[in-house]
Amino acid sequence: MRVLLVGAGGVGTAVTRIAARRPFFEHMVVADYDLSRAQAAVAAAGRTPERFSAAFADASDEAAIATLLREQRCDVLLNATDPRFVMPLFGAALAAGAHYLDMAMSLSAPHPGTPYAECGVKLGDAQFERATAWEEAGRLALVGMGVEPGLSDVFARYAADELFDTIEEIGVRDGADLTVEGYDFAPSFSIWTTIEECLNPPVVYESDRGWFTTEPFSEPEVFDFPEGIGPVECVNVEHEEVLLIPRWVTAGRVTFKYGLGEEFINTLRVLRQLGLDRTEPVTVRSDAGPVRVSPRDLVAACLPDPATLGERMHGKTCAGTWVRGTKDGRDREVYLYHVVDNQWSMREYGCQAVVWQTAVNPVAALELLATGVWRGAGVLGPEAFDARPFLDLLTEYGTPWGLREQ
Amino acid sequence: MRVLLVGAGGVGTAVTRIAARRPFFEHMVVADYDLSRAQAAVAAAGRTPERFSAAFADASDEAAIATLLREQRCDVLLNATDPRFVMPLFGAALAAGAHYLDMAMSLSAPHPGTPYAECGVKLGDAQFERATAWEEAGRLALVGMGVEPGLSDVFARYAADELFDTIEEIGVRDGADLTVEGYDFAPSFSIWTTIEECLNPPVVYESDRGWFTTEPFSEPEVFDFPEGIGPVECVNVEHEEVLLIPRWVTAGRVTFKYGLGEEFINTLRVLRQLGLDRTEPVTVRSDAGPVRVSPRDLVAACLPDPATLGERMHGKTCAGTWVRGTKDGRDREVYLYHVVDNQWSMREYGCQAVVWQTAVNPVAALELLATGVWRGAGVLGPEAFDARPFLDLLTEYGTPWGLREQ
Repeated sequence: MRVLLVGAGGVGTAVTRIAARRPFFEHMVVADYDLSRAQAAVAAAGRTPERFSAAFADASDEAAIATLLREQRCDVLLNATDPRFVMPLFGAALAAGAHYLDMAMSLSAPHPGTPYAECGVKLGDAQFERATAWEEAGRLALVGMGVEPGLSDVFARYAADELFDTIEEIGVRDGADLTVEGYDFAPSFSIWTTIEECLNPPVVYESDRGWFTTEPFSEPEVFDFPEGIGPVECVNVEHEEVLLIPRWVTAGRVTFKYGLGEEFINTLRVLRQLGLDRTEPVTVRSDAGPVRVSPRDLVAACLPDPATLGERMHGKTCAGTWVRGTKDGRDREVYLYHVVDNQWSMREYGCQAVVWQTAVNPVAALELLATGVWRGAGVLGPEAFDARPFLDLLTEYGTPWGLREQ
Repeated sequence: MRVLLVGAGGVGTAVTRIAARRPFFEHMVVADYDLSRAQAAVAAAGRTPERFSAAFADASDEAAIATLLREQRCDVLLNATDPRFVMPLFGAALAAGAHYLDMAMSLSAPHPGTPYAECGVKLGDAQFERATAWEEAGRLALVGMGVEPGLSDVFARYAADELFDTIEEIGVRDGADLTVEGYDFAPSFSIWTTIEECLNPPVVYESDRGWFTTEPFSEPEVFDFPEGIGPVECVNVEHEEVLLIPRWVTAGRVTFKYGLGEEFINTLRVLRQLGLDRTEPVTVRSDAGPVRVSPRDLVAACLPDPATLGERMHGKTCAGTWVRGTKDGRDREVYLYHVVDNQWSMREYGCQAVVWQTAVNPVAALELLATGVWRGAGVLGPEAFDARPFLDLLTEYGTPWGLREQ
């Protein structure tokens, strides 16, 4: 297998470090808009440097990416860029006859009239619209294959296959106790993306209503996370799992709640109230005279780059899927989860926990595709595949998952 | 009397509208860095247009301002700019042999070692250092002569002269119930200045300790404001009264508390936590490439200009001075206050309440100087003068003050 990895940021760099330890692929081309970042990610891989090479790529240029895939004879494109580049990369892979994996799906647009009640364009809609073309080409677009979405979807499939007869509710729950030394406020993931997903109308699925939206931060609940993280306030957030899981798994209700904590929710509310979440530019004075600046870009410029914070971070991050239903005629409730301790990921891979946890899942998925354990054609989510081999492979990677009966 | 008014923003424009109705001065030159703003303020005056003229002035250019004062044969400079321009305007007036009035004093600088316990450079220090030169020139610099500082200081002097034998505590308390239609968050006063005064270490005076500072937002209390405004949470804020009152009035303790309300305090805390209150520029991308922008300027650019909000504002604003002490051997506690209803100030003057309330006080003070009721030389606060004629004049201006025994 020859892989084109597009995007050499925090997650892309962690992908090269994890993949370098696995023999399943022949070569990985690491491409970025900033060639020096791609070269740094190749250097970071360390082991088997002959299996990696760096290239320039503009992720917004579909034709150029298709050419690169053909020139490099790549079987698969792994997209590790931000969601703005999903559609050109997805299109380039189809055009070049390559398979495709991403960790976030095409972007949503709110309903023009009732954004906090009805869905407009949903996450992934633009990708699923082209499913027939992928099926006809006999190629696979495996969408949402990070940790959340990704592992969380695998957990949902596993619960349906092996733990439950009927499922009333599936709730993805994400929480952490990470702190960053020397900073009162330092998000562990891109603030640009965090604002995008947290301030968009959250989406909920119910079997009798289909998909619908709510006000931001709706249905707050305190969820008790395992391995010492403890209780964290979680709220509804727009996320891919709610769109993916109901396509392959039968459940009465599907939600995604993020353990933002009261303080972070308050910060996001204030940013919205002041209009500082906006991406449309405003005019402001600068050293170069009056210029047009996006307020959200300015907020990001005031905060530290999350990928550089690993050495100052402490604590653990948990991704998981809570399921309630019945088994053998009795009520059952479980939480399937995956925890990464930042101290461990820094020591073992030199990557901070959130970034490493995102990156390990697409590498494991590539391995299952390379070995033929997972195979398919069309636009499919992680829950379209058999869960057990994936979960076993994670354990083999040294990062086991857990199950808590509750 | 010939007056040079520097600054034709919201307060400057209200000054021309109020002064136009009073015959005490011969001519007022309205000067601004933006000549069209100065011309608009002259046009806004309406009545007796022959008594007003517009001029260009750069408030940061001390020599040019002194020349303008001489050329225009002005007896007095009224400073209606922001506090960054206090020192050049104060210096220009002295150089040109004119009297000087302002509504905010020279800026403070935090103590380098213990900013939340000890004072560094205090508000007004740079002005009081030059008091001897003013005395020797026989000219008056009447500093802090807006509403707060200003009328609040007059109230303190009135309490000491007529209402109390001994004063235990003087607390200036400012609160409002103003709302702005169509905005979740729209400060009624310059956000730049509000951030400056609210996030600087608040200063407190105690007779046995002198001046000292505390953490921002310290000593929260709920103060019940009159005329239907009702209870508002107030916290310590750095303000001129605490530096002025103890110089002329004997009191055990002097504080200033601002009725910011919980929501506004929360907003300011978040701005500080994210570093968005900073004036030092950060690098951010813009339509002109990477530029250096002050985060505080960007926050201001995202919010509506307070001076333009009068038509959409509803409610009242209250400035006042609460005093506790003894009279004739018995405990006494009073609140002396001045309330402006936005509906009234818009109808009568076309000015929003907060801006109008600030502007009326220096006009009344100019009238007392023109008529010789107030006279003096040196750098003096409003409490250095007899309070009764000022309070009577406010009533004559149609904007009476109140006294509540508590």
